[in-house]
Amino acid sequence: MELLYEGKGKQVFLTDDPDLVVFRFKDEATAFDGVKKESFGGKGEMCATITEILMNLLEKNGVRTHFVKRLSNNEMLVKRCFMLPIEVVVRNYSAGSIAKNLGLKKGIKFPFPIKDLFYKSDELHDPMLNDDRAVALGFVTFDELDVLYNSALKVNEVLSSFLLEKGIILADFKLEFGKFKDSILLADEITPDSMRLWDKDTLEPFDKDRFRFDLGDLLAGYRLFLEKITK
Amino acid sequence: MELLYEGKGKQVFLTDDPDLVVFRFKDEATAFDGVKKESFGGKGEMCATITEILMNLLEKNGVRTHFVKRLSNNEMLVKRCFMLPIEVVVRNYSAGSIAKNLGLKKGIKFPFPIKDLFYKSDELHDPMLNDDRAVALGFVTFDELDVLYNSALKVNEVLSSFLLEKGIILADFKLEFGKFKDSILLADEITPDSMRLWDKDTLEPFDKDRFRFDLGDLLAGYRLFLEKITK
Ligand SMILES: Nc1ncnc2c1ncn2[C@@H]1O[C@H](COP(=O)(O)OP(=O)(O)O)[C@@H](O)[C@H]1O
Ligand SMILES: Nc1ncnc2c1ncn2[C@@H]1O[C@H](COP(=O)(O)OP(=O)(O)O)[C@@H](O)[C@H]1O
Ligand SMILES: [Mg+2]
Ligand SMILES: [Mg+2]
Repeated sequence: MELLYEGKGKQVFLTDDPDLVVFRFKDEATAFDGVKKESFGGKGEMCATITEILMNLLEKNGVRTHFVKRLSNNEMLVKRCFMLPIEVVVRNYSAGSIAKNLGLKKGIKFPFPIKDLFYKSDELHDPMLNDDRAVALGFVTFDELDVLYNSALKVNEVLSSFLLEKGIILADFKLEFGKFKDSILLADEITPDSMRLWDKDTLEPFDKDRFRFDLGDLLAGYRLFLEKITK
Repeated sequence: MELLYEGKGKQVFLTDDPDLVVFRFKDEATAFDGVKKESFGGKGEMCATITEILMNLLEKNGVRTHFVKRLSNNEMLVKRCFMLPIEVVVRNYSAGSIAKNLGLKKGIKFPFPIKDLFYKSDELHDPMLNDDRAVALGFVTFDELDVLYNSALKVNEVLSSFLLEKGIILADFKLEFGKFKDSILLADEITPDSMRLWDKDTLEPFDKDRFRFDLGDLLAGYRLFLEKITK
């Protein structure tokens, strides 16, 4: 397979079908713009499984995703998209950069889900955008932003209520979208690398914050999360 | 007069009328969160004059401001507002933090005026907000944001075309708004401290960037600007 792109968490390969690419999830975890890095055997497989489960759940609830099918333990076939260079973040609770930048304690519940927009650029450290900035820079149109925000809020509803039944709080998450033919699909991954997931009772994190801030064994957290959402 | 508040650029004094305060413009210029600081004799007077001229112009064009009347060379009477803790920035050309953060060259004309929102907080270094953040944190309502944005765009139209006739490009500017009784007024100042003003032909700055980046004599720039808008 010809490697199209290698990112921090995945390799993307071309296929014979120009509309399809293979996603291979790597075992590596990275944080702080790739400054912190470590390999965890089995992480790639768990992230592939979690993305498959959650994208299937979203499809069933009317969210169109790039997911086509699982190929192997750490590989999946997805629709090849023209990616929008932005990240949409939805926040139910304060954590991460918003807490740091706005001087908020971690774990405050917002009165409604906050939608944030960031420019996906490693060199610029993913600077914050807003609607005007994203449109003025030509990344997206206002109509497309409407689609992204509606989709992101729908994802939040579906995942939050699914996870809460499993005893997990979805504190925040990051989505990427891509254009495929005439539509916009939810693309990339939905994993504990891209979400903040807290135990409903203890508020212990299951997600990559374990790695970022040395809050416990990363693999154990991901495994526990996978167990909870599959039983 | 009892000092109500002393900021980086102005002193605010109480009056006998609880609805009115006195603004005294200081001669001091500050930049980079107050790290760079210098006094310029006559700056306060020029900033008071410029604010008076431009707020009068805006009032004539239907923008409601806090300005009541000039009191002395560096003092004016304004309506005492309950200030919203946010800054609204309108950008016609790239410069300053947006250029730095998004990796843009200075002086690019945006396809439409970009509206940005910042949280007015010296300790947090005025972090960027968006609509959701500003509302979720209780700073403002969505309806109030509509009023602020409409007012800011109107200010941009009025000032841009007025200044262009005088040979000046309004590259960007910052506004503050306050609540007075049941309405929202344009408050604070409109000066070369709060705007980026470029000569239409040479693109030389008349504004505080002269001080920030040592681009020429600050007083000479402000004086030239004042001459241009008064003749
Ligand atoms: N359906 C898709 N088609 C094409 N590219 C995609 C698709 N979904 C995600 N991508 C892109 O593939 C890359 C995934 O690799 P990743 O390791 O996450 O990269 P990064 O280090 O840029 O986050 C990202 O650049 C992402 O935008
Ligand atoms: N009409 C008004 N009523 C009350 N306060 C005002 C009004 N207009 C502006 N202010 C506030 O007065 C202060 C002006 O002083 P300034 O030197 O600009 O302060 P800062 O260093 O906070 O920018 C600011 O905090 C501003 O928000
Ligand atoms: Mg990625
Ligand atoms: Mg000020």
